Amino acid sequence: MNEKKLVGEKAAEFVKDGMIVGLGTGSTVYYTILKLGERVKKGLSIKGVPTSIQTEKLARECGIPLTNFREIEQIDLDIDGADEVSSELDLIKGGGGALLREKIIAKAAKQCIIVADSSKMVKQLGEFRLPVEVTPFGCEMTEKHIRTLGFLTELRLSTDEPFVTDNGNYIFDCSYTKGYDPKKIEQELNMIPGVVENGLFVGMADLVITVDHDKKIMLKE
Amino acid sequence: MNEKKLVGEKAAEFVKDGMIVGLGTGSTVYYTILKLGERVKKGLSIKGVPTSIQTEKLARECGIPLTNFREIEQIDLDIDGADEVSSELDLIKGGGGALLREKIIAKAAKQCIIVADSSKMVKQLGEFRLPVEVTPFGCEMTEKHIRTLGFLTELRLSTDEPFVTDNGNYIFDCSYTKGYDPKKIEQELNMIPGVVENGLFVGMADLVITVDHDKKIMLKE
Repeated sequence: MNEKKLVGEKAAEFVKDGMIVGLGTGSTVYYTILKLGERVKKGLSIKGVPTSIQTEKLARECGIPLTNFREIEQIDLDIDGADEVSSELDLIKGGGGALLREKIIAKAAKQCIIVADSSKMVKQLGEFRLPVEVTPFGCEMTEKHIRTLGFLTELRLSTDEPFVTDNGNYIFDCSYTKGYDPKKIEQELNMIPGVVENGLFVGMADLVITVDHDKKIMLKE
Repeated sequence: MNEKKLVGEKAAEFVKDGMIVGLGTGSTVYYTILKLGERVKKGLSIKGVPTSIQTEKLARECGIPLTNFREIEQIDLDIDGADEVSSELDLIKGGGGALLREKIIAKAAKQCIIVADSSKMVKQLGEFRLPVEVTPFGCEMTEKHIRTLGFLTELRLSTDEPFVTDNGNYIFDCSYTKGYDPKKIEQELNMIPGVVENGLFVGMADLVITVDHDKKIMLKE
C-alpha cells in the first residue's frame, strides 16, 4: 500500500459518530475522504466542512453530508495534509492553494490531525517554498515588502495567468535564504498590508500521522 | 470655510512637481483632490495612485493623471483622511470601507500626511468602531475569534446585504470594552485566519493636519 493511502486511511479511524469534521485538501487526505465515505455508507453519522471547492466535490461524490460555518458552533476534528512537517510539528501548507480556508478550519477545530507521507517530514521547515496569499490590488508592492523580510518570491501561475485562489487572491511562492523562525516569520508576514494569509501553521497540529522507515504507521504528538 | 475644506486644501500644498501621490478616500481628502486638480490644470505634473474606485473616479474627473503599482517603484507622498487620530498620531481608518487599499498605499509611501477635522482628534483610540476586513468564507468563525479578543462585533450592511469591499470582502465594525493597546491589538487581529486587514494604522502617519479651537490650521508630527 502506498504511504499516502496508509496514513490517509489511518486518520479516518479517529472520526467518531456525531462529529463535525474539517476535510482537508490534497493527495493524502483524499484517501481519508474515500474511507470516510465508506464508513458513512455503513452508518457513520458525521458532517464535513470542506477546505476547498475540490474537496467539497469529492466529499459529495463519496456521500459525506456537508455543513458550513453558519450552521455549526465549532469543528470537532480537522484532518488535513501538509507540504512539510518539522520535528516541532510546525507545518508549511498551501501547495494546493487552499491555505486560507485550511487555516480558518484548523483554527476553528478542537483537534487537528495532519496526514503526511515520509517525504514531508523534515527537521526544519524551509525547503518547500512558503505560499503567501495576497490581494491582487497592490500585489507588486506587497511582493516588495515580502522580499524585505529576506524571501525570494515568485508569483504562482496557472498556464500564463496568475493562479487565483478560491477567495479570488494571488499566491507568491517564497523561498528563504537564511535560518527560519516560523513563529516570527508568520507574524511578520501577517503584518504586511496586502498579505491575506501565509502557509505557516505554527503550533496548530495536535497529531501527525506518518510512516517510519519500515513503512509502519507512526503517530507523533 | 469648513474644517474639512481647510485641512484638505492645506495638504495639497505639500505636493511637489514630479511626485507620485497616494490619493486617499473620504470627505476631507475630497478637498485635497479638488485642489490638486486645480494645480494640475495650472501645470503641476504628478501621478496619483487612488485608494478606492470612488477616488479613482473623482481624480479622473479632476484631470489628475493616474498610475498603478505595476508602473512605479514607490509612492512619494500619501494623503488620506482618518476616522480617529490619537495624541500618539495612531489612526483608526476604514469607515468608508477602503482600509486595505489605504494601508497598502500608506505602507508603500515615503511620507504619509493625514487630514482630519477637529472632531477626529481624540486622546485615545476606541470611540470609533474599528473596521476589520475579513474573507466571506468562514466569516462566522472569524467573528468568534475577533470576539475572543474582547470586541463586540457587527457585520457592516449595505441595505439588507453584507457590505462588500473593493476586494470582495466583508467588514466587521468592532467596539472594544477594555483599554486599548493599538499595536498589540493590530498584531492579534492580523494573526486570526480570515482577517484580511484591520483599520488600525500604528506609527504610519508622519504629519497630521487638523485645526485648533480658533479654526486655525495646526500641524502635528
